[in-house]
Amino acid sequence: MPSPTRYVLGVDLGGTNIVVGAIADNDGAHVGVRLEDTPTAAGAEAVVDRIVTMIEAVIAEAITTNGARREDFLGVGIGAPGPLDRAKGIVIVAPNLGWRDFPLRDAVADRVKLPATLDNDANCATLGEWWRGAAQGTKNVVGLTIGTGIGGGIVLDGKLYHGASDVAGEVGHTTIDSTGRYCRCGNYGCLEAYASGPAIALRAREALERDEASVLHRMVDDNLDLLTAATVYDAANHGDALALEVVRDTAKFLGTGVANLLNLLNPDVVVITGGVTRAGDRLFEPLRAEVKRRAFRPAVQACSIVPGKLAGTAGMVGAVATFRQQKLGAL
Amino acid sequence: MPSPTRYVLGVDLGGTNIVVGAIADNDGAHVGVRLEDTPTAAGAEAVVDRIVTMIEAVIAEAITTNGARREDFLGVGIGAPGPLDRAKGIVIVAPNLGWRDFPLRDAVADRVKLPATLDNDANCATLGEWWRGAAQGTKNVVGLTIGTGIGGGIVLDGKLYHGASDVAGEVGHTTIDSTGRYCRCGNYGCLEAYASGPAIALRAREALERDEASVLHRMVDDNLDLLTAATVYDAANHGDALALEVVRDTAKFLGTGVANLLNLLNPDVVVITGGVTRAGDRLFEPLRAEVKRRAFRPAVQACSIVPGKLAGTAGMVGAVATFRQQKLGAL
Repeated sequence: MPSPTRYVLGVDLGGTNIVVGAIADNDGAHVGVRLEDTPTAAGAEAVVDRIVTMIEAVIAEAITTNGARREDFLGVGIGAPGPLDRAKGIVIVAPNLGWRDFPLRDAVADRVKLPATLDNDANCATLGEWWRGAAQGTKNVVGLTIGTGIGGGIVLDGKLYHGASDVAGEVGHTTIDSTGRYCRCGNYGCLEAYASGPAIALRAREALERDEASVLHRMVDDNLDLLTAATVYDAANHGDALALEVVRDTAKFLGTGVANLLNLLNPDVVVITGGVTRAGDRLFEPLRAEVKRRAFRPAVQACSIVPGKLAGTAGMVGAVATFRQQKLGAL
Repeated sequence: MPSPTRYVLGVDLGGTNIVVGAIADNDGAHVGVRLEDTPTAAGAEAVVDRIVTMIEAVIAEAITTNGARREDFLGVGIGAPGPLDRAKGIVIVAPNLGWRDFPLRDAVADRVKLPATLDNDANCATLGEWWRGAAQGTKNVVGLTIGTGIGGGIVLDGKLYHGASDVAGEVGHTTIDSTGRYCRCGNYGCLEAYASGPAIALRAREALERDEASVLHRMVDDNLDLLTAATVYDAANHGDALALEVVRDTAKFLGTGVANLLNLLNPDVVVITGGVTRAGDRLFEPLRAEVKRRAFRPAVQACSIVPGKLAGTAGMVGAVATFRQQKLGAL
């Protein structure tokens, strides 16, 4: 008789949505992925309630459709915004969630009566892309997750690199222009201040003050407050000159930050995930060109710069991988 | 009868000098360190001749004063300017030496009839500081070697991190100002273009055009072409206002680059070696302050930023360590 299929649950907790799923340990199939995109700023206990409800729904679906048993679920990997204390399972500060020193790992583990692990959301997304996505089969990977902020993760030899105090991988908060734009982290000239979603929208709004002709005005009914990075990508994909320029500038900023990664870490792959990838080759081609201009040739030749493949599930998949590595000792 | 003491030789090949020594494997004492500071641009074969002569002198001294036997020397670790092909033992390009595709490792190994390894000089200096110097007993270290250029090395878990094509650790060629000064690597705004020895001298010369009072004019007999970074440190240590400003600016530039390292790699220690450390706390205090302003607090709290302890021997000591790790399997 074959041994039963086991599952590990993954939770990806973001500022605006929660993704929960489970991955089977034999063929790696996803089971019962759930996405909830209600803003998550409702307070820590309410968020835990929703996570638990989603976990129970995923387990119930696996029992119904896959013939799983409850005891086949080995645990829960959780990805959450940092900074975190991984050892204690605590979210130290999460501005988008309004949290401070919240013991998320144990709060979830106690409710679902399963062991759990906690890691940074961008770390999980990077590990997910290495395990099942765009960086499969490679050795050293840097991931950038571009959304409200720019998160990052570093996978070396198939393991997340965390550094001395779980800060490692904060690509978004590396300076590309030491006297440049103010960043909400308190620093000046961070990559995030130029190339996060809100920064892209801000640069577009600034440019629109000097350009009456752009289709972007019409797309937001002349209310520039409504302009988001997604509007910019859509306009660029329709050939709007101003939007295309904003995307090209974004590529140059990202290219500078990525070139720094190449000269410093010489990775096999840089994986970029998040809304910005909607701009497609309009972004990636000038980005690669900028990296080529700035980084050492052997580092450029060794590295692929690619969009992520897992879209919204990279963080959930990577959360499963972190649990497996930490608690089961292997993937 | 105790087993005999064994030795590993280390060679640190720089643009202007060569250091050779040997380290015993029981108490780790250095033996017969030799320094030759003739410029090394005399052609590859001549440089190999000099390295071999120095190695033979170190071996002869150990035989005479330590009672060593020739068969007690296990091999030679070599540190040289990059980019390198470590696997093949080839220096791909070394502008300061005028070399291209030179098989340095085997050229030395064949002559001294000992196995040899080749690694980047700044990598060796970082590993040396971790093994015997300012970063002893720590886990993750980034080293900056500031001289004609700014080299760097990354030690993770006590091992050099090389990346996909031996480029990793090029801290000097990370961009801190994307539209900034031209760097000889072809990029704009590299840390090296602001804080290497020649860049420090250049910034001082630029400032001196607007300042008649500085003691620096007199120190170089009004010939600004003679001004070097060392002159600037000396003038700063004598309280010259312009030199102090140049040192403070250097600290800000270095601080920006080091803050990027903290947010990206979250190391336990950043070790800075080279002539710039002659400026002492006049450099390190504002440097640490700049890092504190720019990097995440948990990364700042976890990291010591210190001058190297091994002065001119860090590269030689680290070259010994790379040989031991690669060929003997342990330190």
